[in-house]
Amino acid sequence: MKCTRCRDSAELKLRAHNAAFCRTCFFEFFERRVLRAIERGRMIEAGERVLVAVSGGKDSLALWDVLARHGYATVGFHLALGIGEYSARSREACQRFASERGLQLEVTDLRAQDIAVPDLAWAARRPACAACGTAKRHFFDQAALDHGCAVLATGHNLDDEAARLLGNLMHWQTDHLARQRPVLPPPHPRFVRKVKPLFLTSELETASWAFMRGYDYVVEECPNAVGATQLTYKAALDKIEAASPGSKLFFVRDFVERGAAFFEKSAADRSAGVCTSCGQPSFGEICGFCSLRAQLERRRAARGETRRADG
Amino acid sequence: MKCTRCRDSAELKLRAHNAAFCRTCFFEFFERRVLRAIERGRMIEAGERVLVAVSGGKDSLALWDVLARHGYATVGFHLALGIGEYSARSREACQRFASERGLQLEVTDLRAQDIAVPDLAWAARRPACAACGTAKRHFFDQAALDHGCAVLATGHNLDDEAARLLGNLMHWQTDHLARQRPVLPPPHPRFVRKVKPLFLTSELETASWAFMRGYDYVVEECPNAVGATQLTYKAALDKIEAASPGSKLFFVRDFVERGAAFFEKSAADRSAGVCTSCGQPSFGEICGFCSLRAQLERRRAARGETRRADG
Repeated sequence: MKCTRCRDSAELKLRAHNAAFCRTCFFEFFERRVLRAIERGRMIEAGERVLVAVSGGKDSLALWDVLARHGYATVGFHLALGIGEYSARSREACQRFASERGLQLEVTDLRAQDIAVPDLAWAARRPACAACGTAKRHFFDQAALDHGCAVLATGHNLDDEAARLLGNLMHWQTDHLARQRPVLPPPHPRFVRKVKPLFLTSELETASWAFMRGYDYVVEECPNAVGATQLTYKAALDKIEAASPGSKLFFVRDFVERGAAFFEKSAADRSAGVCTSCGQPSFGEICGFCSLRAQLERRRAARGETRRADG
Repeated sequence: MKCTRCRDSAELKLRAHNAAFCRTCFFEFFERRVLRAIERGRMIEAGERVLVAVSGGKDSLALWDVLARHGYATVGFHLALGIGEYSARSREACQRFASERGLQLEVTDLRAQDIAVPDLAWAARRPACAACGTAKRHFFDQAALDHGCAVLATGHNLDDEAARLLGNLMHWQTDHLARQRPVLPPPHPRFVRKVKPLFLTSELETASWAFMRGYDYVVEECPNAVGATQLTYKAALDKIEAASPGSKLFFVRDFVERGAAFFEKSAADRSAGVCTSCGQPSFGEICGFCSLRAQLERRRAARGETRRADG
């Protein structure tokens, strides 16, 4: 197997691109695709600081690395979710990654605020992933404002976006379809642009990049994700991709370029206001996170629980 | 396992409906769903004759049977495709089914007209399934007119529609999405309404119905379908359905009820005219079938072939 670009011996075959690469050429290919996605989507304007949400997994660390290596002013932000050992390992991975590269990392610890994800999920009587998403939206927005960032970048990759797209289509969640974009403008002038520079970069590509660059990242999935329908959609899409390489790429790219426009009217009259409690974007008077936190306080009061002292 | 309706011993479990049925109750359930789809979609008006396109497979025969048993004036129409032994067995199955039930069956034989599907595919240098679809559209429309039918009913089931929908979405074929409906009004006043009364009835249900009613139908897939991407989409959807029963039903039903409207503008200005050669619906001067037939004649002439004598 020869490298498609330099004819040297190839190390990695990417069937979706009908190409094979040696390590050096793959690095170039990978970075170029990420940078091109940023340029074409006008994801980051000159001089803007970028908050990179890092989980400790390969995708978000790869994104942070590429941005920092190419001169973007980044602040890494890790939200410690309080999901047992998994969260401890994730935080350590981020801290190690940042200190090895001299990058600025900020951490917010939900357990220290006594609102760990398992507690929020218990309060909401909902799946942990729903509570986790609500908390992330709140703290990511907050951290971006706190650290003077105009942009929030997340490491969602092509496989994530394809699975989410398929899930939204299977249920015809037209509101969600209208908002599933690689560049989401601020919902309100006070807030940040949200971007996904890896939306056309597959999990195989980020995993290969992380491996070849010797990242010490958290390989395990979040324990709450086991059995999540998202993984079923990924498996279904893997079947299609195996039979017809490149399918996920066309699916997501063509959605963004042509499909998404059809759903725009679905979200046309939804412009966010500001939560009267926390000042973050909200479609109601109180945002989802503040009502979740209030719910937790009520359930704790009802159980006669005092706030834990380890905060 | 008990029957959900009568508490007798159940013979069939339908996870998508969270139900189990004895044979008698399943028959009622099956017929009611088909008849309700016809009513809700206003697929067939009182007094209209229905051309039922029958392939010899379980779905179209089940449809024909249900329509005839419930007093609809039907004409069965079988297009003999000229695909070797498969086509011979298919035609026999239709003829046997019709004569056992005293139903009117009309047959058009493509080989007799020297335009068998393999020849058309060779002429078009395209996959056989594309040529076959073009020929079917032409002869189904023609037969409906010839036999005084205002409606053409086909046996596409839920699994077919879900796979087609997924395929159209994977490639963002927004034109096709605009036209993927269980009831398609005539594209031109001279032509027929096209309906799919089984669009919410799964393959498991039609197969169970055909088995329980003792149909002698063609079980094999068309040999040209082997390896078709349609089957990959079906397998992917089967994975999702297994993890979350009812997914295909929601996917197709919600598309029809909510999703499809988003794509309407994509096909808004496409109204068909009439082919100047055959008089069938056409979006150009000559319809797809007539230009395919002309292509075959040209390729045969170029090869110095005379028309075969077995026509």
